[in-house]
Amino acid sequence: MSRLHRAYSAPDREWARNRCVLDERESHHLTKVLRLRKGDEVEVFNGRGEVRKTVLVDVVKHKVELESKEIIQLEESVPSFVLGIAVPKGKKMDEIVRQATEMGVNRLVPLVTSRSETSNDQKRRASKLERWRIAAIEACKQSGNAFVPHIDSFRPLDDWLKGLSPSTFRIVASLESDAQPLRRWLTKEPSSSPPTQVVLLVGPEGDLSSEEYDQARAHRFLPCDLGENVLRVDTAVVCAFAIAKEEFRAYLDMPPVQPNEK
Amino acid sequence: MSRLHRAYSAPDREWARNRCVLDERESHHLTKVLRLRKGDEVEVFNGRGEVRKTVLVDVVKHKVELESKEIIQLEESVPSFVLGIAVPKGKKMDEIVRQATEMGVNRLVPLVTSRSETSNDQKRRASKLERWRIAAIEACKQSGNAFVPHIDSFRPLDDWLKGLSPSTFRIVASLESDAQPLRRWLTKEPSSSPPTQVVLLVGPEGDLSSEEYDQARAHRFLPCDLGENVLRVDTAVVCAFAIAKEEFRAYLDMPPVQPNEK
Repeated sequence: MSRLHRAYSAPDREWARNRCVLDERESHHLTKVLRLRKGDEVEVFNGRGEVRKTVLVDVVKHKVELESKEIIQLEESVPSFVLGIAVPKGKKMDEIVRQATEMGVNRLVPLVTSRSETSNDQKRRASKLERWRIAAIEACKQSGNAFVPHIDSFRPLDDWLKGLSPSTFRIVASLESDAQPLRRWLTKEPSSSPPTQVVLLVGPEGDLSSEEYDQARAHRFLPCDLGENVLRVDTAVVCAFAIAKEEFRAYLDMPPVQPNEK
Repeated sequence: MSRLHRAYSAPDREWARNRCVLDERESHHLTKVLRLRKGDEVEVFNGRGEVRKTVLVDVVKHKVELESKEIIQLEESVPSFVLGIAVPKGKKMDEIVRQATEMGVNRLVPLVTSRSETSNDQKRRASKLERWRIAAIEACKQSGNAFVPHIDSFRPLDDWLKGLSPSTFRIVASLESDAQPLRRWLTKEPSSSPPTQVVLLVGPEGDLSSEEYDQARAHRFLPCDLGENVLRVDTAVVCAFAIAKEEFRAYLDMPPVQPNEK
């Protein structure tokens, strides 16, 4: 089985006469890690759905030049998914970014909550964001996701809640007593038109505070339970996102409820 | 918020006159890591659903003695879930064991497939199994899961397939063209009685071979797709298990189909 080799080329990177020179990081990966040579095929994606079938034509000063043979423009799937995640301490968020990107998240918002244990040092935050953006590109390469998720800067939870677009469908992973399986919420509150964007909120290891749950409820977040056990943030993110994706896939498979049928 | 402290005491560990002495590992955790003292409350679970509310009464030669005040016997939920996982290389399986245990897996089977990259050195395998068993106990403590999953020894895929109990409902995470969302399979093939055990198979990073997919199909595994992207094994396990748990939760919420209604 010959493996497909992927490379990322940012949307602002120029293709002149179907040729493009990759940056050093991507060039190094192709020539030193994957050991590709002239004539080898590379699939190049720009992170916004454009995928090019290319051939490696030259290596000049450690930079790879590719020639594009075919362009495919993919459409982003609907609904899009936004994940608001209370950033855990240490490097756990790196794995969360990777896994959520494999699964096709469209936007990641690193949140600061009352029980967050993340550093508020601006330099450390900037370096984390940079690391996560690279992790997202790598996860796209590995999984075949053609859309690199947008990663926001760190935001306080209440600020983020206030700024959400009104038409979004909102879910918070919850261990509170009013939490229900997502399917029950979808059955109870069928919408006349399916949502185009779903927003998921996952709290920190110590859980959201009661006040934060109240804030989320006030902003129309539906509390969803993920089973009886207390999940770590990384497990909760993948579980909640997997369930939401699957529920909306099935929900959109069915014709929307007509207002006069209710 | 006072945190609940949990400790594990194996089912064969003796409770005489409501008192029990914990082993060194558990004692060390309570006294050195959590810094508990006489009079502190500890919830002790035996990994088979028995949960005791206890009080720390003594520490003798670095071993903790507890007095049991109340015993609760929990019932295991139905269906039970078995995960057969092609063991990835390195330490990835440790995280998979942790996450699957948080989510309530009942049994984990480390599988060897044609594209597995795991070592077949018996000593290394034994030490991995020991590490995973400890990881499962730790994940139970952290998540409040009262049932420590059984972890099988390494097994070749074909051997495992042949030995499965006939009444199990079987799913394989698949990127093959015949894969469908689990819900479609459940709608297409409604069962007159809901399954008591669900078996999930997740292949290795390089995927199962065509022959292995054929073997799984021959053993009545339904190929389920987890979305359009290629997921790493750890992501695939959590996704597949989350979706299966949620689907069966909803499926069991509904009355079973009566044979004469078909």
